[in-house]
Amino acid sequence: MLSKFSQRISEGILFTDQYQLMMAQLFYRTGVHEKPAQFDHYFRQYPEYGMHKAGYCINAGLEWLVDWMQNASFGNEEIRLLKEQKTSKGKQLFSDDFLGWLRSNGNFNSISLKAIPEGRVVHPFEPLTVIQGQLAMAQILETALLNQLNFQTLIATKASRIKEMARGQLLLEFGARRAQDRGAIAGVRGALIGGADFTSNIGISHILGYPPKGTHAHSMVQLFISMGMSELDAFDAFADLYPDDCILLVDTINSLESGIPNAIKVFEKMKRKGHKPIGIRLDSGDLAYLSIQAAKMLNEAGFNEVKIVLSNELDEMNIWQIMTQITQESPKYGIDPEHLINRLTFGVGTRLITSAGDPALGGVYKLVAVMNNGEWTPVIKISETPGKIPLPGNKQVWRIYNNNNRTTADLIGLSGEDINSMDVLSLHHPVDPGKHRTLQKDHISKTDPLLVDVLKDGQLIYSFPSIEEIRQLRNYDLELLDPGVKRLINPHVYHVSLTDKLWELKQNLIENMK
Amino acid sequence: MLSKFSQRISEGILFTDQYQLMMAQLFYRTGVHEKPAQFDHYFRQYPEYGMHKAGYCINAGLEWLVDWMQNASFGNEEIRLLKEQKTSKGKQLFSDDFLGWLRSNGNFNSISLKAIPEGRVVHPFEPLTVIQGQLAMAQILETALLNQLNFQTLIATKASRIKEMARGQLLLEFGARRAQDRGAIAGVRGALIGGADFTSNIGISHILGYPPKGTHAHSMVQLFISMGMSELDAFDAFADLYPDDCILLVDTINSLESGIPNAIKVFEKMKRKGHKPIGIRLDSGDLAYLSIQAAKMLNEAGFNEVKIVLSNELDEMNIWQIMTQITQESPKYGIDPEHLINRLTFGVGTRLITSAGDPALGGVYKLVAVMNNGEWTPVIKISETPGKIPLPGNKQVWRIYNNNNRTTADLIGLSGEDINSMDVLSLHHPVDPGKHRTLQKDHISKTDPLLVDVLKDGQLIYSFPSIEEIRQLRNYDLELLDPGVKRLINPHVYHVSLTDKLWELKQNLIENMK
Repeated sequence: MLSKFSQRISEGILFTDQYQLMMAQLFYRTGVHEKPAQFDHYFRQYPEYGMHKAGYCINAGLEWLVDWMQNASFGNEEIRLLKEQKTSKGKQLFSDDFLGWLRSNGNFNSISLKAIPEGRVVHPFEPLTVIQGQLAMAQILETALLNQLNFQTLIATKASRIKEMARGQLLLEFGARRAQDRGAIAGVRGALIGGADFTSNIGISHILGYPPKGTHAHSMVQLFISMGMSELDAFDAFADLYPDDCILLVDTINSLESGIPNAIKVFEKMKRKGHKPIGIRLDSGDLAYLSIQAAKMLNEAGFNEVKIVLSNELDEMNIWQIMTQITQESPKYGIDPEHLINRLTFGVGTRLITSAGDPALGGVYKLVAVMNNGEWTPVIKISETPGKIPLPGNKQVWRIYNNNNRTTADLIGLSGEDINSMDVLSLHHPVDPGKHRTLQKDHISKTDPLLVDVLKDGQLIYSFPSIEEIRQLRNYDLELLDPGVKRLINPHVYHVSLTDKLWELKQNLIENMK
Repeated sequence: MLSKFSQRISEGILFTDQYQLMMAQLFYRTGVHEKPAQFDHYFRQYPEYGMHKAGYCINAGLEWLVDWMQNASFGNEEIRLLKEQKTSKGKQLFSDDFLGWLRSNGNFNSISLKAIPEGRVVHPFEPLTVIQGQLAMAQILETALLNQLNFQTLIATKASRIKEMARGQLLLEFGARRAQDRGAIAGVRGALIGGADFTSNIGISHILGYPPKGTHAHSMVQLFISMGMSELDAFDAFADLYPDDCILLVDTINSLESGIPNAIKVFEKMKRKGHKPIGIRLDSGDLAYLSIQAAKMLNEAGFNEVKIVLSNELDEMNIWQIMTQITQESPKYGIDPEHLINRLTFGVGTRLITSAGDPALGGVYKLVAVMNNGEWTPVIKISETPGKIPLPGNKQVWRIYNNNNRTTADLIGLSGEDINSMDVLSLHHPVDPGKHRTLQKDHISKTDPLLVDVLKDGQLIYSFPSIEEIRQLRNYDLELLDPGVKRLINPHVYHVSLTDKLWELKQNLIENMK
């Protein structure tokens, strides 16, 4: 935990890389520091988790980034610290005139920002965030922007996959203890946007307006035993205190032989007193097998509606496994698999908050245009890897819906283009010149521009949606996505395409560079 | 970015899981909330990164945890938020008497804490942190303690592996853009403790007292080109501004055909003006091959001492690959591999700050003793997995050095035991009853108790070492570790053992439970 001063220094505007300031000073010295420039933020590849990979991402992180931008600036303390930095010869690294400019102009008041809203399904190469503003400050922004947007999008995407495999059953985020220090807090927000219904983390729950969820740990049962009492005594005490919110963790001793029978005894007492028991939690062992046995025991005792909460290193793959095993094996024990699945809740910790399998989203931030003599000039960076060449210029992304009202492609074009007036849409693969298709207007039911204006010269001109509204947008987008794209393994490749004009601009700029 | 209020709520004492408060209220209601209890923090397995795994960890995170504990408490705002929480029947979840107790006692002033110092090599099953204090607050502490200690230890361990493979060459942490929101900040501290020499992150560099490192990005070169100038112009401008700190990124266009020749031209001018060029940076392509070619070109131009900085998705495995390839291929090109390796610097980003391959350390926090009638009573939790049974009671960890002054084992015993008075040390495997060995006193050169007192009833009685001192401790421990334990792949299993007394206590408690 850092002091208030240390927190400002480490989390404020100085949360950036040294080379950003080195370049900013060079831009100042060269006289181009206030030249308008455009940077695009986008990712090139979906997360790949080893044996499985994502076919879409859920965009997240924007509101907190914009809040950060509106508060971050170079104040006296920041300038003092920069002034202390030395060259290898012991001279002042950042000169007084540059630091004076930073003191007066070192904020994001010059920045305009467009973005795809949080919660939307997004794909590679699409500009998720578009920054236009004075070169020096737009450059300095890079580190914090990527840090905040990459992480929440990564976690939202993982949460969406897990929710998908959980067939929409209640999903609880439990990851704080294995999370990345305070990264846990933004991670929870990403999880709640992407698919988690609630989190166990109390503080951030209150900030975001969701009730925190949780019951008790093994240590409670263990403590009762250490005082000469029993698991049953512990359950009784818990049920007495929380008669209407009672979920009992049944695996401290042995789930089938001790925990579940004791839970049933307690539930029977609760029922007699007029309370409705809520659930049991299984946190170890073969969760599919134990769920079936638990359901059988609970049903036989008349508790057909009591929930079964599962936890222990869960992720999309082992939830899928659990669901498959339950579907196959339940009938053998006289349990209806659908009924059992509908009473499951999943508590997911480590593997959600770390995006296990792929712990980073490779989002990048690339210069795509500069203003020369009052005109935006698209720029390009060539690379030996064609997929690493950024898309030049000021762009829009349109989502194209077919006549079944499914999304059929996302089309990236230049922002002035009027795609609705075109009779035939020409769709170029963003990298491979050989891949091209056309789409007749009568096969299109709707087009939806995804980038919206958020900041205009530093002023907020956007009303941030609530997390509930963000989730509605997520559900809308997921519903219209081809099920093949949502597959866990070998998902269909969703078509992200370029318009003729953007494709030609890119090719021309590449030619000019050579 | 959260407001000050939101930051206090999300990062302060409410950075905990809901079940901790649910249990705390139960302990209060049962009258055991102030009963002294002991929890141990330890991990059960080294990080496993897929094809390779760690044979040791570097302990980290303690100072920031203790700072957090000394500042975190239930104030009026926290109590107000807890009071708003409702049961499923809409009643107040936490009762006023419990909240009143929390308001007065909801801090860590009752807690005593012992720990293994930061920077030390640590192993599974060893108590890294030992908490004794009033049950309710010791329970509430769990989430924040695990969150902070697990992450810094995870990153310090990864950094140590990378530094080892880099053969001690300069290691720079570059990960902010792919890190976990503000988790990046604690991650940098872990990296600096474990093996990184510096970081690019400006803010935390100033807090920790290290100069941030970095030069320029591709965007600088690209910007010059967009204004009708060239890579050479960009390099010239950079060298003019930073004549004594000039590292040039040479791969914006083509490293061998453009970047390195241009860098050499600039270096020649700098040399004529009396400046010493520092280095070039390679950020794409076959880094081993390009390093050799770069060394050849630089040497031929008389710049034998110019550094070569490598970056681009580096980790311990691909640094090892680069080192191997340089060793094998350099002679073919007339380059001395040792000379080349000695001029390398490594910039490591994503794969360090995310601990790629294993993004979480599974540290746990387990109840091991409670005070009954003024006496500490060891407690146990049984499990069907023997490795998950915690070690009961109040313990010490001794590091045992052999006659070559190498560490030969870590021995966990009860804290009252005097191992130096024993003629023969009996070493039990912590889990497997069949594994036991003895160690004669005359084979032991030294024993070193690892746990030190940090907090006594909430009062700090420990002087935190500087990061430099922590690094010295790390180097000392690593030097005395068997090289086989430091191997990247299939490391030797370092012996962590239990004394006779601890082994017997554990067996007796397990028997009693059955």
